[in-house]
Amino acid sequence: MEQKNSVYIATSLDGYIADSQGKIDFLNTFTFPEGEDMGYSAFMNGIDALVMGRVTFETVCGFDVPWPYEKPVYVLSNSLNEIPKGYEGKVFLVKGTLNEVLSEIHSNDHHRLYIDGGSTIQGFLKEDLIDEMIITTIPVLVGGGHPLFGELDKSLKFECVSSARYADKVVQNRFLRLR
Amino acid sequence: MEQKNSVYIATSLDGYIADSQGKIDFLNTFTFPEGEDMGYSAFMNGIDALVMGRVTFETVCGFDVPWPYEKPVYVLSNSLNEIPKGYEGKVFLVKGTLNEVLSEIHSNDHHRLYIDGGSTIQGFLKEDLIDEMIITTIPVLVGGGHPLFGELDKSLKFECVSSARYADKVVQNRFLRLR
Repeated sequence: MEQKNSVYIATSLDGYIADSQGKIDFLNTFTFPEGEDMGYSAFMNGIDALVMGRVTFETVCGFDVPWPYEKPVYVLSNSLNEIPKGYEGKVFLVKGTLNEVLSEIHSNDHHRLYIDGGSTIQGFLKEDLIDEMIITTIPVLVGGGHPLFGELDKSLKFECVSSARYADKVVQNRFLRLR
Repeated sequence: MEQKNSVYIATSLDGYIADSQGKIDFLNTFTFPEGEDMGYSAFMNGIDALVMGRVTFETVCGFDVPWPYEKPVYVLSNSLNEIPKGYEGKVFLVKGTLNEVLSEIHSNDHHRLYIDGGSTIQGFLKEDLIDEMIITTIPVLVGGGHPLFGELDKSLKFECVSSARYADKVVQNRFLRLR
C-alpha cells in the first residue's frame, strides 16, 4: 500500500497561514463560483485519515459548524489524555515521535495521510516526512503572522507538477518531494 | 504614458531570495532547455529602466560577466556620490524619498520600471508602489535566509493573472495589484 503524507493548505502571497493576530480573514478575500472547492473534495477522497496537532484540533472544534471530517482524525498531543466528549470514534489521540506515530497509524491501515496545522506540518518537514504539498496562494500580502514554513537544517527539493488558477485570482500549485 | 513598477524575481518555495549564507545556489537546482529564459527577455523588452539598491548594484558588478543590462539602471543610494568608473552612461545615482526618485525617473521619460533587489522591493511595497510581480518559485525549501517579503503596516491585495510551469518543475506566477 502506497504511503503518502500530504499537505493541502492555503497561504497568503507572503507565506502566512494566519495573520499577526492569528486571524485567517485573508482567506476570504475573493469569492468563488458556487460549488468551486478548489479540488478539496477530490483531495479528501484520496486520503485515509488526517493528522493534526492539538491546537488545530481545538481550533476546528471551536468553529461554529458540525465536525467537518468524514475520515478519522489523529491528534498529536502529549498533554491530552482522553478524547473530548462527543469526538469518540472520530478522533484518536497519538503520542510519541513522528515515526512512532506513523507506525501506529499505518498499522490501522491508514496510509494516505492529510497532515494539517502549522506546527505539525513544520514538524513533519523537519524530519523530511512530507511527500506532497498542494498550496493555494491567496494573492494578498498580509505583512506578518504565522508562516507556513519554518527553519530547516537541510534543504528539501520538490517539483511543481501542476498549477491551476481559480476565480482568475488565486493560484494553486501542487508540489511533490523529489528524493 | 502608462506608469508601472514591476518585480521579476525568483524565490525558494519558502519565499527566500538568498539562503542564510546569502547564497543563491538554489536558483540552479533545475536545468532548463537551451534558450528557455522563462519570459525574461520579453519582460526586459517591456521596461524602460531598472531601479535597484546599492547592494544589488554592487553584487551585479561583482559577477564575473559583462554588464548585463541594456536599459538604464537607477541605483538608489545615499552613500555613493559618484558612479563607479566604467558605468558612466549606464548607471545613474538617485537619492531621496521613493516618490522623489520616481518623479525624477519619470521626468527622464522612463515609466515602466523593473524594481530589483530585496530591500528595494520591500521599500516599494511598504509604500504600495508595486503594480506587478512576476515571481518564479524554485520548488526547494531552503529553510532560512533573506525573505522576498518583509513586514507591512497594511495588507495589499493582488490577483494572479497567469501561471506557467517550466521544465515540469518550476512555476512562475504573475500578480497584478488590485486597487
